[in-house]
Amino acid sequence: MPVKHLAEGSTKPNFIDGAIYLFSMRFCPYAHRAHLILDAKNVKYEPIYINLSAKPKWYLELFPAGKVPAVLYKGELLSESLLLADFLNDEFAENPLHSTEPIKKFKDRLIIENFGKVTTAYYKLAMVEYNSENFEELLVSLDYLEKELVSRGTKYFGGNDKPLMVDYLIWPWFERFPAISIVYGNIAKIPEDRFPTLTKWNHSMENDPHVKKHFLTGAQYAKHFQLRKSNDPGAFDNVID
Amino acid sequence: MPVKHLAEGSTKPNFIDGAIYLFSMRFCPYAHRAHLILDAKNVKYEPIYINLSAKPKWYLELFPAGKVPAVLYKGELLSESLLLADFLNDEFAENPLHSTEPIKKFKDRLIIENFGKVTTAYYKLAMVEYNSENFEELLVSLDYLEKELVSRGTKYFGGNDKPLMVDYLIWPWFERFPAISIVYGNIAKIPEDRFPTLTKWNHSMENDPHVKKHFLTGAQYAKHFQLRKSNDPGAFDNVID
Repeated sequence: MPVKHLAEGSTKPNFIDGAIYLFSMRFCPYAHRAHLILDAKNVKYEPIYINLSAKPKWYLELFPAGKVPAVLYKGELLSESLLLADFLNDEFAENPLHSTEPIKKFKDRLIIENFGKVTTAYYKLAMVEYNSENFEELLVSLDYLEKELVSRGTKYFGGNDKPLMVDYLIWPWFERFPAISIVYGNIAKIPEDRFPTLTKWNHSMENDPHVKKHFLTGAQYAKHFQLRKSNDPGAFDNVID
Repeated sequence: MPVKHLAEGSTKPNFIDGAIYLFSMRFCPYAHRAHLILDAKNVKYEPIYINLSAKPKWYLELFPAGKVPAVLYKGELLSESLLLADFLNDEFAENPLHSTEPIKKFKDRLIIENFGKVTTAYYKLAMVEYNSENFEELLVSLDYLEKELVSRGTKYFGGNDKPLMVDYLIWPWFERFPAISIVYGNIAKIPEDRFPTLTKWNHSMENDPHVKKHFLTGAQYAKHFQLRKSNDPGAFDNVID
């Protein structure tokens, strides 16, 4: 389903007291995190998509940093995807997403912390340029996750039953990896044989209902990246039919 | 009380099952965080100080990253000061250090997150060099905290009763600020009139028993920085009489 990103010149939406709003951008992996967590916590919310290349004046007035994701909740504007995820988990009781064992929760948070290496390598590849060094940097950052999941011996990083916080917070980048080889060709294809356990996890995640709800194809992400890199104003609204 | 930092060539301590060990360095602000949290949680632990300029081989075998702080607990080596702090708070019930209100906890964590601006500016000043731009960068990062504490209207960032997580996690840098003007003179003195509320908070923190226990003077930190910058092997053990 296509989504409309509100841009400069748009009218400020009418925010209803008691409703929860998520300011998002359909292709942003950080905002993607917030969608997944809100859905996994079964929180009813209204997404408002923002055109990040031509931000609405009303959004900058509401949130001078102008970033996504941000959640408007009880008059407060909450941002920073990781802090937001923990806040939502604390505030809404349904489906706790952290392990109740402190040591397990610590190890999950360490994965999320170290995941910065993956996001940095990915960004350089997808939004800047392909070169074999950048690509190897991404693969090395994924080696750590493969090893970690093997050592855990569980279906998800969070356990065997279902994805937990750690799974949802790292997922958005995995959904986008296929776009890299669509843009750059087979030299940028992540080799499944180097990551057999992570590949299985990837398939399990694709079947998670919350993941499915927001899923976009590699081709759609690829189209977004290409339009975005060439500053095409269609990068936001002309990708999803 | 002087402390001895174990260096290259030192003998591996005999770790007793069931005991908790904190690998630390007496002048490291990140390790300082771990001392404060362990004490505030009333956890009995044994500090082991590491000479970071000549790390013991046994420490690198135990923890290849070779960083401090790290805690050895039930056979696990836990590092990363912020994750460690949350782990200790989750694992040990006494004196909970996070607000029970999710929105308050979120705002405290946002301060800790944004505090990276202070630590970066401080590091450039203390460990690299003084220049007015670096110094102003530090003051601007502190303006945010002054404003935040004024808007909270409480004695501590965590409330009126006592310091909470956020207070302890940012304190180590405040303890070190006086060292900057000892090293560089009055041009590097943080002006109290620009930060009246933060200055009051600073005095309250200095009187906290856990802060007192680890307190070092600006002159001691200044001596450490100067010896460290000139690669003097006395930087670790010859500072505190």
